[in-house]
Amino acid sequence: MKVGILGATGYTGQELVRLLQQHPEVQIAFLGSSSSAGATYEEMFPQFTGKQLGKLEDEQVPDVEVLFCALPHGLTAARTAEWLKRGIKVIDLGADFRLKDPEVYHMWYKLEHPAPELIPEAVYGIPELYRKEIRGKSLVANPGCFPTASILGLAPLLKKNFLALNSIIIDAKSGVSGAGRGASLRTHFSEVNENFKAYGVAEHRHTPEIEQQLSLAAGHSFKVSFTPHLVPMIRGILATIYAQVEDGISESTLRACWEEAYQEEEFVHILPEGIWPQTKFALGSNHVFLQLKLDERTGRVIIVSVIDNLVKGAAGQAIQNMNLVLGLPENMGLEGRGLWP
Amino acid sequence: MKVGILGATGYTGQELVRLLQQHPEVQIAFLGSSSSAGATYEEMFPQFTGKQLGKLEDEQVPDVEVLFCALPHGLTAARTAEWLKRGIKVIDLGADFRLKDPEVYHMWYKLEHPAPELIPEAVYGIPELYRKEIRGKSLVANPGCFPTASILGLAPLLKKNFLALNSIIIDAKSGVSGAGRGASLRTHFSEVNENFKAYGVAEHRHTPEIEQQLSLAAGHSFKVSFTPHLVPMIRGILATIYAQVEDGISESTLRACWEEAYQEEEFVHILPEGIWPQTKFALGSNHVFLQLKLDERTGRVIIVSVIDNLVKGAAGQAIQNMNLVLGLPENMGLEGRGLWP
Amino acid sequence: MKVGILGATGYTGQELVRLLQQHPEVQIAFLGSSSSAGATYEEMFPQFTGKQLGKLEDEQVPDVEVLFCALPHGLTAARTAEWLKRGIKVIDLGADFRLKDPEVYHMWYKLEHPAPELIPEAVYGIPELYRKEIRGKSLVANPGCFPTASILGLAPLLKKNFLALNSIIIDAKSGVSGAGRGASLRTHFSEVNENFKAYGVAEHRHTPEIEQQLSLAAGHSFKVSFTPHLVPMIRGILATIYAQVEDGISESTLRACWEEAYQEEEFVHILPEGIWPQTKFALGSNHVFLQLKLDERTGRVIIVSVIDNLVKGAAGQAIQNMNLVLGLPENMGLEGRGLWP
Amino acid sequence: MKVGILGATGYTGQELVRLLQQHPEVQIAFLGSSSSAGATYEEMFPQFTGKQLGKLEDEQVPDVEVLFCALPHGLTAARTAEWLKRGIKVIDLGADFRLKDPEVYHMWYKLEHPAPELIPEAVYGIPELYRKEIRGKSLVANPGCFPTASILGLAPLLKKNFLALNSIIIDAKSGVSGAGRGASLRTHFSEVNENFKAYGVAEHRHTPEIEQQLSLAAGHSFKVSFTPHLVPMIRGILATIYAQVEDGISESTLRACWEEAYQEEEFVHILPEGIWPQTKFALGSNHVFLQLKLDERTGRVIIVSVIDNLVKGAAGQAIQNMNLVLGLPENMGLEGRGLWP
Repeated sequence: MKVGILGATGYTGQELVRLLQQHPEVQIAFLGSSSSAGATYEEMFPQFTGKQLGKLEDEQVPDVEVLFCALPHGLTAARTAEWLKRGIKVIDLGADFRLKDPEVYHMWYKLEHPAPELIPEAVYGIPELYRKEIRGKSLVANPGCFPTASILGLAPLLKKNFLALNSIIIDAKSGVSGAGRGASLRTHFSEVNENFKAYGVAEHRHTPEIEQQLSLAAGHSFKVSFTPHLVPMIRGILATIYAQVEDGISESTLRACWEEAYQEEEFVHILPEGIWPQTKFALGSNHVFLQLKLDERTGRVIIVSVIDNLVKGAAGQAIQNMNLVLGLPENMGLEGRGLWP
Repeated sequence: MKVGILGATGYTGQELVRLLQQHPEVQIAFLGSSSSAGATYEEMFPQFTGKQLGKLEDEQVPDVEVLFCALPHGLTAARTAEWLKRGIKVIDLGADFRLKDPEVYHMWYKLEHPAPELIPEAVYGIPELYRKEIRGKSLVANPGCFPTASILGLAPLLKKNFLALNSIIIDAKSGVSGAGRGASLRTHFSEVNENFKAYGVAEHRHTPEIEQQLSLAAGHSFKVSFTPHLVPMIRGILATIYAQVEDGISESTLRACWEEAYQEEEFVHILPEGIWPQTKFALGSNHVFLQLKLDERTGRVIIVSVIDNLVKGAAGQAIQNMNLVLGLPENMGLEGRGLWP
Repeated sequence: MKVGILGATGYTGQELVRLLQQHPEVQIAFLGSSSSAGATYEEMFPQFTGKQLGKLEDEQVPDVEVLFCALPHGLTAARTAEWLKRGIKVIDLGADFRLKDPEVYHMWYKLEHPAPELIPEAVYGIPELYRKEIRGKSLVANPGCFPTASILGLAPLLKKNFLALNSIIIDAKSGVSGAGRGASLRTHFSEVNENFKAYGVAEHRHTPEIEQQLSLAAGHSFKVSFTPHLVPMIRGILATIYAQVEDGISESTLRACWEEAYQEEEFVHILPEGIWPQTKFALGSNHVFLQLKLDERTGRVIIVSVIDNLVKGAAGQAIQNMNLVLGLPENMGLEGRGLWP
Repeated sequence: MKVGILGATGYTGQELVRLLQQHPEVQIAFLGSSSSAGATYEEMFPQFTGKQLGKLEDEQVPDVEVLFCALPHGLTAARTAEWLKRGIKVIDLGADFRLKDPEVYHMWYKLEHPAPELIPEAVYGIPELYRKEIRGKSLVANPGCFPTASILGLAPLLKKNFLALNSIIIDAKSGVSGAGRGASLRTHFSEVNENFKAYGVAEHRHTPEIEQQLSLAAGHSFKVSFTPHLVPMIRGILATIYAQVEDGISESTLRACWEEAYQEEEFVHILPEGIWPQTKFALGSNHVFLQLKLDERTGRVIIVSVIDNLVKGAAGQAIQNMNLVLGLPENMGLEGRGLWP
């Protein structure tokens, strides 16, 4: 089956290529890039030398079964209707179809949504939550990296009403690749290495996406505090999540709830008690690692959730969604385990 | 004035030497080490080549004006009475005199306190809070690194009752040097680099120290959630602190409170609005950088506090305390600014 | 086919597991460890959670088709005769069978060779040089990481007598994982990060191994200067090689020689002119990247050769050798490309 | 005494500010920047908060005693005559006055030298070689970072004719700050971290500068091989230097030669035998660390030389030169030792 990638030179694009070139059932038929059309993919990215990946093309999308869109927000939604009409299944790794309410999109992304009528067509692509809905769909909104880590940690507990909704704080940490391949002082090695900082405090665009999904899980609308931080490493997200538990809820109840939710999941792992997730457990893989502890002194549960931002947080989850959309085994092409050390 | 250092080969010991060898009024007369006695300091630590620092000695403390103790907990308290009797002023960079209640010490450090009768003699060495008390003292409990960052961010706001006590969460991140110079898998480069993790979740020993000082500031005893994390960098602490503000308290009220508390402080800087602290601002210096934001959506203030764990979090603050104890200008020997990049 | 690993908890052992668990034709039937027998592999190494790898066993080797030995030198040779007698094919990732002369082994490894009579049975496992010889063998000496990078860059040029033998200098740089998983001050994050150093200057044990293979290629015995350095990164080797070229040899002659030697090789890539290898091109993969330039000003060729020390420099090459020994496609299980970024 | 800095926002500019604000005899009276004029220095660089450094100005240089020029090549030479006429002493941290031959400048820098008549007025600013000449001068060409490390290792040995001139190879490694503060893919954290590469192979602009000074030391003109590499760290240069020694020259002769040359030098340290320099020994300091070994097997000496590229390789050496020009103690303001860890 032929697939294409728009935005093939960014980090998400490169990661899609890395994973798809090992996928037994698909073939990369189109590598689109507005800035680098004409260049050979292998010369730009020598890690693929010998793979015969061909040249980057401009953004005229040929007939492919599935199109991955790794573009800045706004650009995908403007063209999606055309692709859907041509029978192309679209997996959007950008933000255009994640938020159900176009006004919320407008408020946080400072852009009038280019195609609000398509929003209801899209399914939010966390297979562990929406597997059935994804199977029949032609338009998947692949989640943000921070939302993936946060929602997988919280959703099962919220569905059971175990947590005090207004007490939830998500203190998240990300590697630098999350900022993309664009060069700026913010990603300059000498500014980032041996350094740690918070950014986007109380205004990061993943906030409404997290709130939307957590509110759906809880059955009530509520707000969270979400603070991302930049870690001097390339890949990985770790979310430390705090929530007041409702009266009578014990640590083992919380753990049992997770276990029930994830027992059939190949990519989600609840670690044995006392072993806390490290981002490197997930490095280069589509796996999720979870741990929690109920602090009796404060009545708060502390949850830690770990993913690789470019895999389960982007390209890997997109391929997991593609597998569902195409009716392939969900884990096809995603069997690799984390690189350690 | 002659000073000595016990535990001179650890990271705190090396940092004391680096700072003291530039201090115009003191002379390092004693470098004690149980493990490396007999070795030349310069050969062990070639960054000091040519400084004529002499040999490491065993732990027989000669007559010095001030003794810095950078030893594992328990070892300092067992010998402090003798030193005080000999007229030596003691600045303990360990944990022995930080907690006022020997039972709390016992509970968190799993050790019967070796000299509970000396605890009341000790002053908690954050000059910004206890300057007057430090001036006359012979025994200073130099604070832990996480407590220094946390307390400086919170104490002024708690004194004014601006925060809901039971809502306080401190999500802290530290460079690897905080784990000391001991070699273990936990500090192995290949395990730590390109990795991020939480540790000591809901059981780190700095928790009761933070709670003691914050409770003193608030005038009420309360608990906090404190979660430390390990950042793949050498130095630096950043604490992200969350608290529900009391009704009617605005961001400008909070900021004004900080400004009043710290306007005369040479080492504490409230950054201009919108500029968030980065650990590298403090690298190698005794300075503290603060920022806050009131998130109207959730009613929470988010505070970020940054220090260098080995300077303001250890050796630098110890010298600041020494200056106070000896009646020297408080900033003597501590004028250096952060190394950037 | 069942395979086993001795030394399964070291970095080479973990990398063997990572690669073998994706290999379609083999099954890991034995994970041996003298220090951690009894522990579950997944709990020690959570990146494999859910893979059902079983427990680590002591070093009693069961009947397996192939045994990978990732042990300190001396330990493998002492037991190899027994394994061979039982029909087990042995791939030694240690140093015991790399040197043809037991006296050279003695001189550099300070150990009497435990089984000199087996040395002639072993083939040196660089498939690009010794593919035919490896196919029929039961004992493979898997090369060192530095030798692999150095030999692949130089051997074809030496076979053609293009280089002045006594002019060869190999200035090599390695990531920290090359030092193994043992904790020491030499691998402590705070000592290694933001730091760079040479080590083992003019006395590293890979020197005689390099000299042996280069002398075989050249048809004359000669010495090289070899200096390894430690780079503050986890994986990767880059060797910068200098040699005086013989009269009349042009850059294009050198390049043509490489191209002829490697045109059929799946894992060796000569980059386009002007694109210099970076260690990250190879990260996590079995691929080799080469570039050269003839500096007309000095008459020297500068060669740069890059590998991942744990893959082509250890576990990957061992699996490549296993594939040859077992008559499987040489690249089976080794298709992955470098992780970028 | 008032001093000024042109190019005050680059890394060299920031390092000049860090060091000069602690210098007891000078005052920073002018911070010039073409791109950021009008901004407050402290807001751009919060590590200096509270230092009252004032605003960045455009490039109209006021009357100052000494002007540091940290500008791209070509810009300084075009204006130097004017400054000298006004009695301003100029210390150029760029490349304009390092090469004695304007045609060599033209060849390597692809620019007609803007003021060839001033070249003879300039002294090459390595105090350890040209102390007397620097004392009376108004124009100092502050050396490049790679040349400083290379020349200090080689010059004394070349003066005594101990080395075979055409055998010299300098394999140098630098931290990323050497590439400056400009943002590009080449300095992007995700491209540089966990990566190592050579660059500018056989064509780096520091080559003729090194050759000029080494030829002067040797009394004969000759060429070297010089290959720089990029290390995933911020600061530090380590040069590994190879040279064939002349017949009859022993390691102790070489060492004695160094010791004689540097016995009075405060900033140059020959380490005890067996202790090899690490870049971190010099971190943040103006010190140089040297070691050598004669490899009897090959007849080559291997020299390792270490500096901090921004201090002894730029701002620190510039201040050392300023002290000489102004008749101040040479080490004034440069007493700090390396930050470890």
